[in-house]
Amino acid sequence: MWFPSVVVSIEDVMVVEVGPRDGLQSVARTMATAAKLRWIDALAAAGLDHIQVGSFVSPRALPQMADCADVVRHALTIPGLRVSVLVPNLWYARVAFDAGVHALTIPVSVSEPHSISNIRKTHDEILADVRAIVALRDALHQGTEVEVGLATAFGCTIQGVVPEDDVVRMALRVADCGIDAIHPADTVGFAGPAQVRRLVRRLREEVGEKCASLHLHDTRGQGLANVVAALDVGIRAFDSSHAGLGGCPYAPGATGNIVTEDLVFLLESMGLSTGVDIERLVEARAVLAEGLPEVELVGHIADAGLPKGFVPAAAAR
Amino acid sequence: MWFPSVVVSIEDVMVVEVGPRDGLQSVARTMATAAKLRWIDALAAAGLDHIQVGSFVSPRALPQMADCADVVRHALTIPGLRVSVLVPNLWYARVAFDAGVHALTIPVSVSEPHSISNIRKTHDEILADVRAIVALRDALHQGTEVEVGLATAFGCTIQGVVPEDDVVRMALRVADCGIDAIHPADTVGFAGPAQVRRLVRRLREEVGEKCASLHLHDTRGQGLANVVAALDVGIRAFDSSHAGLGGCPYAPGATGNIVTEDLVFLLESMGLSTGVDIERLVEARAVLAEGLPEVELVGHIADAGLPKGFVPAAAAR
Repeated sequence: MWFPSVVVSIEDVMVVEVGPRDGLQSVARTMATAAKLRWIDALAAAGLDHIQVGSFVSPRALPQMADCADVVRHALTIPGLRVSVLVPNLWYARVAFDAGVHALTIPVSVSEPHSISNIRKTHDEILADVRAIVALRDALHQGTEVEVGLATAFGCTIQGVVPEDDVVRMALRVADCGIDAIHPADTVGFAGPAQVRRLVRRLREEVGEKCASLHLHDTRGQGLANVVAALDVGIRAFDSSHAGLGGCPYAPGATGNIVTEDLVFLLESMGLSTGVDIERLVEARAVLAEGLPEVELVGHIADAGLPKGFVPAAAAR
Repeated sequence: MWFPSVVVSIEDVMVVEVGPRDGLQSVARTMATAAKLRWIDALAAAGLDHIQVGSFVSPRALPQMADCADVVRHALTIPGLRVSVLVPNLWYARVAFDAGVHALTIPVSVSEPHSISNIRKTHDEILADVRAIVALRDALHQGTEVEVGLATAFGCTIQGVVPEDDVVRMALRVADCGIDAIHPADTVGFAGPAQVRRLVRRLREEVGEKCASLHLHDTRGQGLANVVAALDVGIRAFDSSHAGLGGCPYAPGATGNIVTEDLVFLLESMGLSTGVDIERLVEARAVLAEGLPEVELVGHIADAGLPKGFVPAAAAR
C-alpha cells in the first residue's frame, strides 16, 4: 500500500468569500481599485481560495463595480485562487468569459416581483438568458463554470412568503438549462433552521449535488444557526463576507451576509476544516479598514478572540 | 372522551429570561428599583413566564443586586410568573427561601480555578453548600426548586479547555446532592455546535432529564447555532437576556447572553411555540432603555423586524 509523503490539506467545507462583490455593492462609497487588490490579496493569503471578486454590471447601476475587469485581471494572477463574478445577463456574461474568470453566477429570483425589481426581467426572460449563457460557454468557454444564485429562495421582502414548491420548480427549470451549480440564497435574511433543512433536503432530492452551496444572510441573527441546519442536510459550501461587509441596512450590528471570520470559527470548532487561518483573516480586517475607512466592520471573533486552547480542525486530527 | 373547551397554549420550549440577573450584574450602573419593576412587568406581559429576577449576594460585591428582596416581592405578585434567583452560598439561599422564590440557582464551576475566582470556593466547599441547601429545602421549603448552573461546562478563560469527562463527573456529583435540575453554562462563550451535541448527549445519558436547560452566551456569535444543536439532542429550555443586556465586554455587537428576542424568533420560526409575543418583547426594549439610558441594546430582530408574512408557531397550527 502506498502513502503519500506530503500531507495534502483537504477542505471539508468550502468558504466562498463574496465581500468584494456582495459586500462592496451595498456600500455607497466606491473602494479604490488598488485598495480592493490589496484586500483580495490579504483574503487569499489567509487561505480563502474561492473569491467572488466583483460584478460585471452597468457602471451606472453599480459604480462600485466599474473596475471589475481590472480586479479580475489581478485576481487571476493569485496562485490557486478560484475567481468568480456575478453577471446579470448574456451581454455581461460574454465580458466575464472574455476576462477569463473560472466561474460566473447569474442571479435568478424565485420571486418574480423581485426579479423584475432587481434585474428587470421576468422568469422567462432570465431563463432564456441562462440558456444562452450556457450555450456560449459550451461553444467557446468550456472551462468556465456557469452557476445560478437562486435569490429569494427563503422569502422575499416584496412577495413575503415564497412557497417551497415554487423554489423546487424554479431549481428544476434552472437545472434544465444545463448550469453547473445552484446556490439557494436567503437574499433578505428570512430563513430559519427548520426551513433550511426542509427546503435543502427537497432541493437535493430534485437536483442532487447541483445544490451544493448556500448564500445566507444574518439580517435577523439566524445566519450561523442556518449553517448548522444546512450542514445536517449535506451542504458543504457557504458564501460569506469578510467583516460582514455590506450589510447594515438597519442599525449597527445588523449584518447582511454571514461574517466569514465567525463562519470559519464555527466550522473549525465543529471539526470541519476550511483551509482558512482565522488569525490572518482577522488581521486582514485592517487592510479592509484602510481601504474603506468609514465602514463599520462587524463580527464576533474579531472582537472576542479565539477561545483559550482553541485548536483548528486540521491540527486536531 | 372529554375535551377541554378552552384551548390551553402549550409551550414547546421554555425561554428563561435572565436579563434582570445576568444582564444587570454585568452593567456597572445600578438600575433604579422602580425601573427594574417596570421592566420585569413588561417582560412578563410579553409572555415570559419564567424570569430570573436577581441575585441574593453581598451588596458590596454586586451593588446592582442590593434591592433583590424588593424585586422578588414585586415579581411574586405577577400572576403565573415563575420567579427565580441566583445564590452563591447557604447564607443567601436561606434569604432566598425566606423571600419565597419558586426556584434558586447555585453556580458550580467545573473549572476549579474559575470557582475560586468567582465565588472563592473549592469544589468540595461549594458541593457541601449545595448539600446543605438541599437539606434546608427538604426540611422547610419543599415547594422550592434547587437548581445548579454548571459554569464553564464548555470552556474557561482561566483554565482553557474543560475536559468533557470533568463536566460529566461534576454533573454526577451535583445530581447526587439531590438538586432538581442542572443547567450547563457556556459562561465565557467558547461552545460550538458539535461540542454542544456531544456533551449534552453524554450529560443526558448520565443525569437524564435533570439536564433540561442550557445557559448560552453569544460572545463569539455561536449562540443561536448552539441552540439549534441543543434542540437536536433534546434540550427544551434556554436562558437568554432581553436586548442581549449585559454582554458588551468587547466591541459593540459582541453580546454576552443570547438575545431573547432573537432566540424567540428562531424557535417560533422552527415551529416551536414559546408563549412569547415577539412584538411586545421588542416594544419592552423601550422600557429597558428608559431605565438604563446609556446601555447599548443589541439583537437583530428589533432592528430588522419580523419577515413579511411571518406566522408564530402556535398560530401556524
